[in-house]
Amino acid sequence: MTENTLDTRIRLGMVGGGIGAFIGVVHRVAARMDDQFELVAGALSSSPDRAAESGRQLRIAPDRVYADYRDMAKAEAAREDGIQAVAVTTPNHLHFDNCCAFIDAGIHIICDKPVTFTADEARDLKVRAGAAGLQFIVTYNNTGYPMVREARAIVQAGRIGKVRLVQVEYAQDWLNEPIEREGHKQAEWRTDPSRVGMGACLGDIGTHAFNLAGYVTGLHLDAVVSEVSTFAEGRQMDDDVNVLLRYDNGARGSLWASQVAPGNENGLRLRVYGETGGVEWDGEVPNHLKVTEYGMPPVTLSRGGYGAGDAASRITRMPAGLPEGYLECFANTYLDAAELIHAALECRSPDPAATTVPQIDSGIEAQEFVEAVVRSSQAGGWVNVR
Amino acid sequence: MTENTLDTRIRLGMVGGGIGAFIGVVHRVAARMDDQFELVAGALSSSPDRAAESGRQLRIAPDRVYADYRDMAKAEAAREDGIQAVAVTTPNHLHFDNCCAFIDAGIHIICDKPVTFTADEARDLKVRAGAAGLQFIVTYNNTGYPMVREARAIVQAGRIGKVRLVQVEYAQDWLNEPIEREGHKQAEWRTDPSRVGMGACLGDIGTHAFNLAGYVTGLHLDAVVSEVSTFAEGRQMDDDVNVLLRYDNGARGSLWASQVAPGNENGLRLRVYGETGGVEWDGEVPNHLKVTEYGMPPVTLSRGGYGAGDAASRITRMPAGLPEGYLECFANTYLDAAELIHAALECRSPDPAATTVPQIDSGIEAQEFVEAVVRSSQAGGWVNVR
Amino acid sequence: MTENTLDTRIRLGMVGGGIGAFIGVVHRVAARMDDQFELVAGALSSSPDRAAESGRQLRIAPDRVYADYRDMAKAEAAREDGIQAVAVTTPNHLHFDNCCAFIDAGIHIICDKPVTFTADEARDLKVRAGAAGLQFIVTYNNTGYPMVREARAIVQAGRIGKVRLVQVEYAQDWLNEPIEREGHKQAEWRTDPSRVGMGACLGDIGTHAFNLAGYVTGLHLDAVVSEVSTFAEGRQMDDDVNVLLRYDNGARGSLWASQVAPGNENGLRLRVYGETGGVEWDGEVPNHLKVTEYGMPPVTLSRGGYGAGDAASRITRMPAGLPEGYLECFANTYLDAAELIHAALECRSPDPAATTVPQIDSGIEAQEFVEAVVRSSQAGGWVNVR
Amino acid sequence: MTENTLDTRIRLGMVGGGIGAFIGVVHRVAARMDDQFELVAGALSSSPDRAAESGRQLRIAPDRVYADYRDMAKAEAAREDGIQAVAVTTPNHLHFDNCCAFIDAGIHIICDKPVTFTADEARDLKVRAGAAGLQFIVTYNNTGYPMVREARAIVQAGRIGKVRLVQVEYAQDWLNEPIEREGHKQAEWRTDPSRVGMGACLGDIGTHAFNLAGYVTGLHLDAVVSEVSTFAEGRQMDDDVNVLLRYDNGARGSLWASQVAPGNENGLRLRVYGETGGVEWDGEVPNHLKVTEYGMPPVTLSRGGYGAGDAASRITRMPAGLPEGYLECFANTYLDAAELIHAALECRSPDPAATTVPQIDSGIEAQEFVEAVVRSSQAGGWVNVR
Repeated sequence: MTENTLDTRIRLGMVGGGIGAFIGVVHRVAARMDDQFELVAGALSSSPDRAAESGRQLRIAPDRVYADYRDMAKAEAAREDGIQAVAVTTPNHLHFDNCCAFIDAGIHIICDKPVTFTADEARDLKVRAGAAGLQFIVTYNNTGYPMVREARAIVQAGRIGKVRLVQVEYAQDWLNEPIEREGHKQAEWRTDPSRVGMGACLGDIGTHAFNLAGYVTGLHLDAVVSEVSTFAEGRQMDDDVNVLLRYDNGARGSLWASQVAPGNENGLRLRVYGETGGVEWDGEVPNHLKVTEYGMPPVTLSRGGYGAGDAASRITRMPAGLPEGYLECFANTYLDAAELIHAALECRSPDPAATTVPQIDSGIEAQEFVEAVVRSSQAGGWVNVR
Repeated sequence: MTENTLDTRIRLGMVGGGIGAFIGVVHRVAARMDDQFELVAGALSSSPDRAAESGRQLRIAPDRVYADYRDMAKAEAAREDGIQAVAVTTPNHLHFDNCCAFIDAGIHIICDKPVTFTADEARDLKVRAGAAGLQFIVTYNNTGYPMVREARAIVQAGRIGKVRLVQVEYAQDWLNEPIEREGHKQAEWRTDPSRVGMGACLGDIGTHAFNLAGYVTGLHLDAVVSEVSTFAEGRQMDDDVNVLLRYDNGARGSLWASQVAPGNENGLRLRVYGETGGVEWDGEVPNHLKVTEYGMPPVTLSRGGYGAGDAASRITRMPAGLPEGYLECFANTYLDAAELIHAALECRSPDPAATTVPQIDSGIEAQEFVEAVVRSSQAGGWVNVR
Repeated sequence: MTENTLDTRIRLGMVGGGIGAFIGVVHRVAARMDDQFELVAGALSSSPDRAAESGRQLRIAPDRVYADYRDMAKAEAAREDGIQAVAVTTPNHLHFDNCCAFIDAGIHIICDKPVTFTADEARDLKVRAGAAGLQFIVTYNNTGYPMVREARAIVQAGRIGKVRLVQVEYAQDWLNEPIEREGHKQAEWRTDPSRVGMGACLGDIGTHAFNLAGYVTGLHLDAVVSEVSTFAEGRQMDDDVNVLLRYDNGARGSLWASQVAPGNENGLRLRVYGETGGVEWDGEVPNHLKVTEYGMPPVTLSRGGYGAGDAASRITRMPAGLPEGYLECFANTYLDAAELIHAALECRSPDPAATTVPQIDSGIEAQEFVEAVVRSSQAGGWVNVR
Repeated sequence: MTENTLDTRIRLGMVGGGIGAFIGVVHRVAARMDDQFELVAGALSSSPDRAAESGRQLRIAPDRVYADYRDMAKAEAAREDGIQAVAVTTPNHLHFDNCCAFIDAGIHIICDKPVTFTADEARDLKVRAGAAGLQFIVTYNNTGYPMVREARAIVQAGRIGKVRLVQVEYAQDWLNEPIEREGHKQAEWRTDPSRVGMGACLGDIGTHAFNLAGYVTGLHLDAVVSEVSTFAEGRQMDDDVNVLLRYDNGARGSLWASQVAPGNENGLRLRVYGETGGVEWDGEVPNHLKVTEYGMPPVTLSRGGYGAGDAASRITRMPAGLPEGYLECFANTYLDAAELIHAALECRSPDPAATTVPQIDSGIEAQEFVEAVVRSSQAGGWVNVR
């Protein structure tokens, strides 16, 4: 069980995430769980009234509740007790400007995904953060599940041999009907091209699936062929995506993301097979990992249980059989972010294990994937990713 | 529980399926289970000695144990008590000639899959059998699982609305290593282009997956883009296939077949989603079917259980909770074959429910699929199926 | 895949099992599956008309269709080609007399369970069959599942250490309402004390659970305390049984059998734990076996898969992942019966592996269990089994 | 998603739970998750050095880090900003004295389970807290799982009819070997009669199982017969318990708790069957609930999904398919505790939904269960619980 035992907590600000915002609460609980962060400032809504009320409800000092994130970046940079990191939890179209402002103010970034509209913007942010010596964590949070870490450790240690096959999918059903036309707020912005960019289902959950496969295998994409579809009547953007994948080591595979698959809630599933074995993980049963050494019966590893290795143990909170869930995996992302930021503040090297947390490079790669999938769908054939 | 209560059983011959042949035993047990067939003749092996010994072991009268299938076709046609149907269980490359000989002899055909090397040959067989007024059943036996019938009935009754998405896969691991080079008989012929035709993994299990999706949805393919791969060292043919699917009603999907996915035994899984619901079936847990009506919690139907409909009940042998397996589903294919053949012999219309059993049209369509997948893989892009 | 390759099949008769009888069909399919038996005579119903019609439907020669089992025993004993074995598939109250008649006629017995009303009767049958040198198989058929054999082999080889704990249950829901009062035939006789003896749920499925635990562990009961209940309104007999178990080696456990547990179809589940490991098996997923070596992650063995041992392989028909079910396990019981009977006919020792099939001793022990449970329930405390 | 939006947080103290204590961290994370509590004081260890260091690590003001809980109770009662509630997280033998001290000081109690050594002590605490007008929550935290709340709502609304059967179990394997003799701290105190009272396995996890069954059904026990066993060599206390249950409404059932069942991590499972249906819940898959209406196929409800009712929704944090785990259920217990304490502080009635959280009455009933089980085991027969 991890718990902060340092003298200080990181002073955190938040952009977006005010009253009624789903992901804002998730970020706050994740930041709070291990007591590594203290939320002390916020520009929590683009509506000044909502920003103020959200600040009051979160017991943020009134002078640190801002109506505009630019003001916040400047004011906090000027304070001796100003924020050391900012959580960017706005809709996608605001991420780039949000991040630029806080990078300019010398503040470390924890940004929700997808990090930008384009790969170019993401590369731009990398340059800016790099130049400023700042950490830039992207909350592809599924990498924070202990058994995903375990899968990565197993695959990257060569225990399943050279990777041959990747099958990854993320299936939901909550957008099965065009509820964005009936005033459903989450559905509205997530299917609006002006707010999410090139891909809706593709950007929201397709990139989670893509990131997960890359995180576990360490592989990079060469080429894709895709089918991007819209099924719900009147929807402006994609709600289903099928992609064939060619990885740089010769591995082959497919990725499916859908928000119109009735009976699927949050079906993120990864299967990776190599020359001598395989790993299989299901995000709805995240505390287990099926591991096969070819020629032996499959073994089901359990988080905290016998046979689970260091990568999982490091971020395991509960004994085996007491389930951990989504908030814990998100908190693990924050835990690693805290380590990177602490190390930067203290001018020391971070714990190497913490550095696997997705950062701006993962954000860039995810945008390259989005762009390639869209190009393939438009062109009707295989396209190179880079 | 179905059991033959007719005065007579159908007199059955068998080509192939001698000592040591896996699928021959399966056909015989399937034919025997409901006591609808009596095995009375056979050309059980291309080796005369093995043919004779196999006939003896199966207690076939010595004068009806043949060394050559052509002799058998002629001799049986000439007998008053000659066979009424033949089970063709040879390797793929022999199917076409085998079938021609027995069609010429006026004998009904029960042929293992894939039915031929090419779609043209399959179309040829259709013409021949049609002209001779003969039944031609193809043992895509997974359609004989009661809950597959149930899925078909649900989908084709419109209970999940217009079909939008198809995800189907068949994953195995038994060819993970090139065991065909170490004398493994099953592996040898199944990876030998001269005996299996254009596709190995593709033809063997890819067509099972394709057939299953078509059987349940009633849809036909328009176009595919594919990636056909060979991973095991020195293997002559494909052992992994990924395909994106475009169906004629606008549905989209993907198909994955692999024989190099460690930890997968016979992972045939189908998921179909429509405008208002979905069905999910797993061939390793074949007695259950997940059915979702969008907006309601998913329901798990059980073979023989509450809520299972007529299509399943008709071929359900055991009460709910007493599992049925692969042999029972294969026997159901034989049961429907028996009904078609009895009806033909008696010049009556068969039970309509029996006519959904895969026949030569399914064989043709499967070969069209194989050819399109191979063309796409070679051409590197989308191809039309017809 | 097992298939009879002997010159001859065992000539089989059947008592009970006429039109409409569930278990008769099961016995016939089981006997037929491996082609080891040929059904040539029957006293298939106590109603002469039904007996005759059943015989006709099964294509038994008219002179070997009997209206009375006593006539059948005598007449078949007098024929040179008379039956060598008889399958007793009548309701429980007839078993004892049926068996006596065929033992007197020198015919081997395959009897459905429970074998008699009382342990004394069962012991009597043992003496009679022993004196006549006859085989007496009792179809506690769940012992015919390959992974039950595997569990037995693992436990009895000491791989989980000395057995400490047994948890076994058999839960159904088909008698949740008093359907015996609405003309349900199966329900009528199974809840009628004059036809089933001391225990209804207890005798029907409780003894299956008890037998399974004893088969796998090799342990014998010392004492029980029980609660025998009737929940359905107006029912004459028990429909739910809870028992605490004390085994002779110091192991402790509990057994639950119920026919009034909504949502349970045929939930036969066994868990056995020893000093160094455990095995868990579920009759609704019978092709798998969870095996734990303490201190290691659990392994799921699959019938036909890597790591499955000889005891399972011997009676495995299909490759891993192609499910086998209830009929196959019943057929395995018949396969072992065939080996015992063949050996007796040929005056040789049977294959030792076949001798684990439940025989009259298992029938005796099951009746002792029934009697002890009833006594404990009446007395209100612990009772010794013997 | 619940998040505190009140102006104030409850000022919380903690007794026990210093460095290295498992359950202390759980209580702190649970208290922190919804930001309803602020930890401001503690007597975190009986060792003064460890108490001081633990306080420092948790950033508690030095003058509120106490070496003795009695000093803490008095000092905090005297402060204007003194604690309003205390979390008692010491080993069992200290609970009674701890609670008395804080009740005397007028401080609300959140006490870990089992609440005392004897039912008499628990009744004494009830009288004391009642007289002082204080809330007394007992962290039988499994009642905080949303789908346990859902199960309770379904059963108590009569949707499965009158309850007939209860099957509940809690199986672990971490004490399979006598690790208390090798310096394992958790094992040491949990198997030491001077620290845990009458039951080890029985008190630790047996009472969780008992509490869960009572919470869901609303039933109370009349009588038990039990078998309490010790399997690990040299162990002083029980590590396995089997109990038959007679409830006051005529329902029957059994309870099994074990810490020596290899392959079981935290296997808390409850099944309840009534006249017209059943519910089944598994604590290792806590986000789902199987619900059967007799005569219909079973439905699997998902936390946050379609068909989940108000009782679950009220404490559901994440959308369906994003798993919640043990910490969230523990936090829900703290959330309800917060509501009860806020209401008491504000002299208002609490939200009725919050009042189902286990309180001192549950603590009393659990101790009565423990005492009855021990008596039955010693006496060798059925005993009445009260």
